[in-house]
Amino acid sequence: MMRPTIALAMGDPAGISPELTARLLALDEVAAKARLVVIGDRRVLDDGARIAAVRVDLKNVSPDADFSKEPNGAVFVDLGHLDPSTVEPSTATAEGGRFALANYRHALTLARDGRAEAVCFTPFNKKAMRLAHPAYDDEISFSAGVVGLDGPASEFNVLGGLWNARVTSHISLAEVAARITTEAVLRALRLTDSSMRGAGFERPRIAVAGLNPHAGDGGNFGREEIDAIEPAVEQARADGIATEGPFPADTVFLRAKNGAFDAVLTMYHDQGQIAMKLMGFDRGVTLLGGFDFPICTPAHGTAYDIAGKGIAGIGATRAAILLAAEMAQKQRRV
Amino acid sequence: MMRPTIALAMGDPAGISPELTARLLALDEVAAKARLVVIGDRRVLDDGARIAAVRVDLKNVSPDADFSKEPNGAVFVDLGHLDPSTVEPSTATAEGGRFALANYRHALTLARDGRAEAVCFTPFNKKAMRLAHPAYDDEISFSAGVVGLDGPASEFNVLGGLWNARVTSHISLAEVAARITTEAVLRALRLTDSSMRGAGFERPRIAVAGLNPHAGDGGNFGREEIDAIEPAVEQARADGIATEGPFPADTVFLRAKNGAFDAVLTMYHDQGQIAMKLMGFDRGVTLLGGFDFPICTPAHGTAYDIAGKGIAGIGATRAAILLAAEMAQKQRRV
Repeated sequence: MMRPTIALAMGDPAGISPELTARLLALDEVAAKARLVVIGDRRVLDDGARIAAVRVDLKNVSPDADFSKEPNGAVFVDLGHLDPSTVEPSTATAEGGRFALANYRHALTLARDGRAEAVCFTPFNKKAMRLAHPAYDDEISFSAGVVGLDGPASEFNVLGGLWNARVTSHISLAEVAARITTEAVLRALRLTDSSMRGAGFERPRIAVAGLNPHAGDGGNFGREEIDAIEPAVEQARADGIATEGPFPADTVFLRAKNGAFDAVLTMYHDQGQIAMKLMGFDRGVTLLGGFDFPICTPAHGTAYDIAGKGIAGIGATRAAILLAAEMAQKQRRV
Repeated sequence: MMRPTIALAMGDPAGISPELTARLLALDEVAAKARLVVIGDRRVLDDGARIAAVRVDLKNVSPDADFSKEPNGAVFVDLGHLDPSTVEPSTATAEGGRFALANYRHALTLARDGRAEAVCFTPFNKKAMRLAHPAYDDEISFSAGVVGLDGPASEFNVLGGLWNARVTSHISLAEVAARITTEAVLRALRLTDSSMRGAGFERPRIAVAGLNPHAGDGGNFGREEIDAIEPAVEQARADGIATEGPFPADTVFLRAKNGAFDAVLTMYHDQGQIAMKLMGFDRGVTLLGGFDFPICTPAHGTAYDIAGKGIAGIGATRAAILLAAEMAQKQRRV
């Protein structure tokens, strides 16, 4: 079976993205599982290869070239838009944001137009993205805008076989409770179930976390479990989704880690992120679900503190590409 | 040096407390580090010993006996108030709550009156406590009432050398943000610092977690970090407390785990509990700080699902006694 084609956008040039991209291209395991179409500036990639002390051997192609005709593995779409000598290291700049955004936009259009089966990107810096594009909110809304997605989309965190989805994400904690409605939880359960089925789970087992300490302790510390979450779980079960809960948030990940569940749906950002990062900071993948194709990126950030030193770990980036390749393979069969 | 005297109250009789108490008494390491004065009903203890398949060999004394004159290790203060044949297993009942409350009250008075140097208890069931005593709120307010404490007190979670304190605890998540004030964070920092100094840390290094995702992302997802937490950290540092932050909650425990800090101050219950339980569910100790003597208990609950099977792990209860003994030793020298 042909390897899936993955459009890989180079992320923020001031962090570890250039060296991660180069290191990834040097991994035989990745080359065996995916055909990478890397998008960026060749000079920035070569700089990354020098930092990572690896050889990258791939052909440059122009942005509109038909790379499907190229026989030999990975290709590099050279947008020629950033001279690395102008990059201020370890600093969020508008130039860096523009570079990452142009690469990412190009990768998304390749997938939208059927020229790639998945999209990956090395870490973005949100501040740089906003300097370049003040309307930039997050990857989901930007991606939805580029590909014209109307339906719901959500961010998942994936660690080995365990998925973490959330009902709310980048909002202040003060705003969370009001957003925990039966409709919101049910929508998240449906999207988690469908995204995981798309990723090859036949009937994903989804645990739902409570919102309050001790899952509300029977209504003593909040009623969202009783008024909003339980009804959503019941409705989802009636619809055939294999879900249980709400469970106290401080033990549900222990159970999931021991294999009781394939996913945990959390009510807010840190409820899941604290657990997932503790369980595998260096292997976590962020997946954008709800799109026609998988979009994956390492769960960590640009790591300005170690950029340029050649010591950035490749684990999470490798896991992101392999998850995207696996999902793309499975979606071919659907 | 004489071993410290620890008053150990037997907890809920329908869960794993009886077998944990018996197993603890059979540990040579515990006997070497502390003199236990166990408070309960001897018949319930003997039942626990049968379940745990251990021999308990300790002398019964009456509630008002001067056990300091007894030469041989542990003694049992037999309140003779519960026939185990009347205990409904794995069920929260008013009788169970009354048993645990009477034991705990007696243990607290021993410490208050200088007859014990620390208090420990095997797990309580909050529902049973409330059935027995509807005004029962939590261990802290009950204990403060018994010993007449006016000052601030707080619950800490301790795992190995790492402490977790929190600004808010058993309240709904919807109420958390409004409670995160400079005063509340500063009060928690001071109590954490003084409790840890009392436990033998010379200058505890305390990391402060943010409230919001990404610690607010510079104000994009909430302003509590800027308006309340940062000023508290600054004031505490000016007062000589070794504290830093606020840090994003989803990575601060990774840093603490790697030794960068002795404690993490979290803003709400699950922010710390998710991390601490993942790092060591079976070794975690809950410590009530702010009292004149240490009060320690295993961080886990009554485990009704495995009660009576003789399979309950002793790790956290053992850790609770050893921490109480260590703290009592150190407080003698103050």
